[in-house]
Amino acid sequence: MSGPAPVGPAPILYVCVTCRAEGSDPDAERPGARLYRELAQAVAARGDDLHVEPVECLSVCKRPCTVAVAAPGRWTYVYGDLSPEASAETILDGVELYARAPEGIVPWRERPQAFRKGVVARIPPLSPAFKDAAE
Amino acid sequence: MSGPAPVGPAPILYVCVTCRAEGSDPDAERPGARLYRELAQAVAARGDDLHVEPVECLSVCKRPCTVAVAAPGRWTYVYGDLSPEASAETILDGVELYARAPEGIVPWRERPQAFRKGVVARIPPLSPAFKDAAE
Repeated sequence: MSGPAPVGPAPILYVCVTCRAEGSDPDAERPGARLYRELAQAVAARGDDLHVEPVECLSVCKRPCTVAVAAPGRWTYVYGDLSPEASAETILDGVELYARAPEGIVPWRERPQAFRKGVVARIPPLSPAFKDAAE
Repeated sequence: MSGPAPVGPAPILYVCVTCRAEGSDPDAERPGARLYRELAQAVAARGDDLHVEPVECLSVCKRPCTVAVAAPGRWTYVYGDLSPEASAETILDGVELYARAPEGIVPWRERPQAFRKGVVARIPPLSPAFKDAAE
């Protein structure tokens, strides 16, 4: 992908591995676990500088599958309504833009459609408030 | 409130000041701005050790009003469906429990009803992954 180089430490992509669709087979692999597997494989294949971390529940149970992306000094974004079959490359493209954008804020029109439709929440970076508090 | 003393740095309570109900008067004070005002006043009155920060959009526009609570080494929680008229004290009671709980994880049954019903997402603390990455 072209554009400016990534800024700062590699982001973390949290993947809810307990996400499952309502009424799905409780004995089958959970869609969230499959998405995690697809993402971990895709990151290794692409060589992206990114930590992929499984999480037991991101509390977005009504909009599976769900991920969150975070990094020090950057906004945290939570996305839902993601497909374990189709979303891995799209998610990684979106995270790559995030890693290159100041404070992780990618202009709306440049975000993947899945991120625009699936946004659940965003949270400011912690550091400025704690810097203010220490002054 | 009784119970163990708060652990670690004071949390930050982010309050979306742009939250508004669909169809509400665009010239009136936004419900999010009112909730921020109520929370700032209540924190001052209670003397809580808490930073209250206004934020322009937490991207939870379909579930106003919205807040997020975060602290270093703790999970971040996002809550929606909050009332600017009635929620300030309830939110602060919930945040006080958060400040006293290990990693900010309050047992489900002890959380205020508004937090149980209004949870939008939770995100793990950043620090462990970055500690792992540095090892």
